Amino acid sequence: MQTEALIPFKSRNPKTRLSRVLDQEEREAFAAAMLSDVVGAVREAGCRPVVLATETWDNPGREQAIVHPAGLNEALNSLLPLRPGPVLIIMSDLPLVTSRDVDLLCGTDHDLVIAPGRGGGTNAIFIREGSRFRVDYYGQSFEKHKKIARDAGLSCGIAESFRLHTDIDEESDLVELLIHGAGRSVTFLRELGFSLWSQQGRVCVERGT
Amino acid sequence: MQTEALIPFKSRNPKTRLSRVLDQEEREAFAAAMLSDVVGAVREAGCRPVVLATETWDNPGREQAIVHPAGLNEALNSLLPLRPGPVLIIMSDLPLVTSRDVDLLCGTDHDLVIAPGRGGGTNAIFIREGSRFRVDYYGQSFEKHKKIARDAGLSCGIAESFRLHTDIDEESDLVELLIHGAGRSVTFLRELGFSLWSQQGRVCVERGT
Repeated sequence: MQTEALIPFKSRNPKTRLSRVLDQEEREAFAAAMLSDVVGAVREAGCRPVVLATETWDNPGREQAIVHPAGLNEALNSLLPLRPGPVLIIMSDLPLVTSRDVDLLCGTDHDLVIAPGRGGGTNAIFIREGSRFRVDYYGQSFEKHKKIARDAGLSCGIAESFRLHTDIDEESDLVELLIHGAGRSVTFLRELGFSLWSQQGRVCVERGT
Repeated sequence: MQTEALIPFKSRNPKTRLSRVLDQEEREAFAAAMLSDVVGAVREAGCRPVVLATETWDNPGREQAIVHPAGLNEALNSLLPLRPGPVLIIMSDLPLVTSRDVDLLCGTDHDLVIAPGRGGGTNAIFIREGSRFRVDYYGQSFEKHKKIARDAGLSCGIAESFRLHTDIDEESDLVELLIHGAGRSVTFLRELGFSLWSQQGRVCVERGT
């Protein structure tokens, strides 16, 4: 049975922690490029991508979308009970993810696999029977999701790829994207003049003028 | 043939970026605890750990050690030519690493496997024939090491575990250790009163008084 990949996406004024190096219009285009990379990876892995957006947006890739103006938890917890089959929830700010990572997530023997995000969050969850789980994002959601799985009697694996672990929120995350990225979002950054440089042994990003 | 695991270790005044939350004596004890976790993981994976220290230190675990006061590159590049067999170079500040990660590194079909560190560095390298490689740490060493491998005609794999990717340098890295750690170094932090708390959706560490 084909896995439905729900991809939460914030189109308007996203990634404000990157405001020092990208203006709002650029951040919106960058977020759309990252979404495109994630959609590509899940599609290549054989999943059916469905963008879960807070509002309508340009959607140049004509991706299937659900527009749900509620909060992330409310939106997902209204959709999951209707989904008895396999569901992948994967964030749209994971442009390092490859189809191999998605294959490993969805090829599990567990009822559930969680990919922790840097800083205690949850970057992806594969749920074999979507209706048996509910989400609780924000804060220490990795621990919360493990507990929800335990309480529901679901066996739970952990995905350990750094590509799933690395969500792009801050300038230091752009270093990871410039080093390990291969899709539209890294191309977008390079076209804006972003590059790496080393300062006292540490690697930083700079934007050319 | 048993893999020799060379573990570079700085015993005196290490991890200065943690100075806000740990004084020098605590940082030295913390570095020793992280070393102990790494030694345990490589030993459990069947490697022979050898600590490569810049100076003599307390060494409570009585680990085999080479004291080499030169810089990291000079020290390693004087040792590698004498090592025709398999060598793993793994940093001592990777307390999330498990024996499974080490198994995957050393079980490769490649001539070489590199585990990138966050920020462009290199956290571990497995070299099937140590004498065929030389290292060039600092700055963008991940890219440099890939190039050295290419120039030497060595096939090169990439290790993608976030446990190998996460070196502990800054306070935000302590969040990862408190969430995903299971060894001496996380016990050390907990005994000092470190815990996690969420602030505006972001997870931080705080040290209890």
